[in-house]
Amino acid sequence: MSFFRRDPVTGRWTIINPEKKYKKTEKNLSSPEGTGGLKHGGRTFCPFCPGHEEKTPPAVLIKETQSSRPWAVRVVPNKFPALDSSSLSVLTTIGIYDRMSGFGIHEVIIETPSHTTSFPDLELEHATEVVRAWKERYKDTSKDPRIRYILLFRNRGGEAGATLAHPHSQLIALPIIPRLVMEELDGSQKYYEWKERCVFCDMIRDEELQGLRIITSNDNFVAFAPYASRFAYETWILPRKHQSHFADVEGQEDQLASILKDVLGQLDQALDFPAYNLLIHSAPCDEGDLVHYHWHIEIMPRLTRIAGFEWGTGFYLNPVLPEDAARTLRTV
Amino acid sequence: MSFFRRDPVTGRWTIINPEKKYKKTEKNLSSPEGTGGLKHGGRTFCPFCPGHEEKTPPAVLIKETQSSRPWAVRVVPNKFPALDSSSLSVLTTIGIYDRMSGFGIHEVIIETPSHTTSFPDLELEHATEVVRAWKERYKDTSKDPRIRYILLFRNRGGEAGATLAHPHSQLIALPIIPRLVMEELDGSQKYYEWKERCVFCDMIRDEELQGLRIITSNDNFVAFAPYASRFAYETWILPRKHQSHFADVEGQEDQLASILKDVLGQLDQALDFPAYNLLIHSAPCDEGDLVHYHWHIEIMPRLTRIAGFEWGTGFYLNPVLPEDAARTLRTV
Repeated sequence: MSFFRRDPVTGRWTIINPEKKYKKTEKNLSSPEGTGGLKHGGRTFCPFCPGHEEKTPPAVLIKETQSSRPWAVRVVPNKFPALDSSSLSVLTTIGIYDRMSGFGIHEVIIETPSHTTSFPDLELEHATEVVRAWKERYKDTSKDPRIRYILLFRNRGGEAGATLAHPHSQLIALPIIPRLVMEELDGSQKYYEWKERCVFCDMIRDEELQGLRIITSNDNFVAFAPYASRFAYETWILPRKHQSHFADVEGQEDQLASILKDVLGQLDQALDFPAYNLLIHSAPCDEGDLVHYHWHIEIMPRLTRIAGFEWGTGFYLNPVLPEDAARTLRTV
Repeated sequence: MSFFRRDPVTGRWTIINPEKKYKKTEKNLSSPEGTGGLKHGGRTFCPFCPGHEEKTPPAVLIKETQSSRPWAVRVVPNKFPALDSSSLSVLTTIGIYDRMSGFGIHEVIIETPSHTTSFPDLELEHATEVVRAWKERYKDTSKDPRIRYILLFRNRGGEAGATLAHPHSQLIALPIIPRLVMEELDGSQKYYEWKERCVFCDMIRDEELQGLRIITSNDNFVAFAPYASRFAYETWILPRKHQSHFADVEGQEDQLASILKDVLGQLDQALDFPAYNLLIHSAPCDEGDLVHYHWHIEIMPRLTRIAGFEWGTGFYLNPVLPEDAARTLRTV
């Protein structure tokens, strides 16, 4: 049984999940896949491969394409979720401390039946179904009035916290708006109050005008290395049209799949299949359209370790000039 | 030549340091030690060992004890600093973006001439000289009017971003107050406005009253597992007396050295010499005494990987109940 605890100084929430028996020797326990990797006859058994469907909870969504058998995309509840969809969302206070029961939803999006085909190698039709699965689960989950924020993300590689190699992404739906999201909302609102414009829209215009940090683009999306990249080869993808919620991707799923295939392929080629975290940043799902916030994707290759300096200050040390990173990625 | 860049949405600063030639195959480049580990005759050459003093810039402080030869503690400017003390602190704006030249100070505190003696095994007299070296460099650095914040930290182990095994800590002095520090300052100020009390003082009283999360204590300091620990076995050390700046440790250096020896020894025993980041959180050095802020030490063992979930939300998934962690550490 997991629960949330709030730091009384900063208001930062932690999920404490002591039912996951913690062993010193076990690595990557913080990774929320938690589905384990059972050793099986000398080879690692993969619960996400076709034929092993009974090793996961029953699917909540299945997508099919003409060429992919027995399915193209399969979405299942996480077998060992970080949060529990059956618990109530109750806040209790003990002295100066607040805690809340660990209500939430945790799903896994298995992106392909193939254990070794990564996103850039999927056919466009198949990649589009992955994006549609994200959007459909996002929309469906956001109907729950207890859910305030939905996080869609992919951890690729052990350095990025992934415990299973089979290509997959995750959805975590929360009863809390996370602190980093609040910062983006606050910052973009202040910018809007001052300029009466969306800071992300301004960023797209500035980036296209200068061209220095553009990686690639298509009719609906632009990918660039952000000006203050925290990580070497950090890459953001923004919809050209102002949209605050990820669900607004409707109708442009193929364009998003296409630019994602391009960008992830460029990263794989330039950096030799790096570990990365991919995150979809969206407005809170319990808010209407926001003039100041613009949903987007952040991809953070994990090429360097995060050390004490970063933890202690919240600012980062990046050894690669974003303009150089963009040029490298543009030209692979 | 490094410089700071500011994210226009959140105000987060990144240090971009492109002079550090980045190679794909090189790991841990984000670690600010940067002093390299030159291979030498088949064994790794250590620039921090006695006899190699000419491999570092000249010492800015040397501490001696009766039993430690040729010195006990040696503080040197970082040979490959993340920031440059000779550059000016100049802010420039390009379109919607701000940048600032990379002015700052970066020093290494070599804590012992012995390559293999870690802090818990130092004699108390020696450990006290390490704490005095931190305090003296802190006080000296804070005299520079361009410096607003001083970060003292130790990365231990490759998982924590350390590139050299020889026991050492680091000082980075900044012309900016980091975002995470601002959050602590803001949060503790709001608490003070509401309660007219310091939240950290209240935390000490609550923890000692309940006793559940106390790890150890002495006349001047208390160590406990914080209520909302982000990391398994996270440990904080607070001075009992309300003090906002680390320099206020003056006169209690031996007590701090003693509790640090205890706590780090307990972590080493319970977790088999884990990698960790140790950080001293202090009020900004350009501010006077603050009624609402309380300096303290945060120790974060790096037993699990930080994955997309943590990056995307700023909240953490901790598999160990802080009460259980404290009990384990208390009883080793």
